[in-house]
Amino acid sequence: MLDYRGSPDRLFHALADPHRRAVVERLTHGPASVSELAAPLPMSLAAVVQHLKVLTDCGLVRSEKAGRVRTCHLEPAGLRMAEEWLRGQRTAWENRLDRLGALLAEEADAEEADAEDADSAEDSTRRDEE
Amino acid sequence: MLDYRGSPDRLFHALADPHRRAVVERLTHGPASVSELAAPLPMSLAAVVQHLKVLTDCGLVRSEKAGRVRTCHLEPAGLRMAEEWLRGQRTAWENRLDRLGALLAEEADAEEADAEDADSAEDSTRRDEE
Repeated sequence: MLDYRGSPDRLFHALADPHRRAVVERLTHGPASVSELAAPLPMSLAAVVQHLKVLTDCGLVRSEKAGRVRTCHLEPAGLRMAEEWLRGQRTAWENRLDRLGALLAEEADAEEADAEDADSAEDSTRRDEE
Repeated sequence: MLDYRGSPDRLFHALADPHRRAVVERLTHGPASVSELAAPLPMSLAAVVQHLKVLTDCGLVRSEKAGRVRTCHLEPAGLRMAEEWLRGQRTAWENRLDRLGALLAEEADAEEADAEDADSAEDSTRRDEE
């Protein structure tokens, strides 16, 4: 059971921005302060704070303030939830392909059996004629 | 190597809408016409066509027209690509946890060894005093 509190809508929306994905990638290596997260991003600190708000609201990031420093942490439950939805779709699609494959193989077997029946019927007709 | 042509931005944006996710879920069970896809959705056919355009542009869906019927198919490369990005982040985060765990175990071992050294030093001092 995931303790995930975000909705898939907000989660996928949060991941649709390359800077927010960059923040997530950075946080997989450990917690970071807002200014550390902002350093490589080509935007104002206010814009970074907005992106962090989107990531926090969807449940991908949590933060805590100690003195004047706010430290951000990754919340992996959100990543797992998105991954599980995607895996579910892929698995359903692959299962359908497997069923199609099995159906085609059965049809091929049936056709082969029919062809063999026709051959042996032809042989017996030929023997009757001889 | 994936033959995936969409960008992660467009892909995650496409998945951020519940109706577009419903279309993807439907297509995992097999191809469907636009009107079949539209039937369960609470919106106009024009709105469905717009959603299908977003799904096609990001590479999750392809469609073909035969006579008057347009049939949509799932393109699983997009799902796999999004899943792989998410798995990569989760794995990086879990590896970091594993390294932290190993570090803590090493520190605990070192502290235990220190404590044993201190004990045996204390014992030998006690023996010297006796």
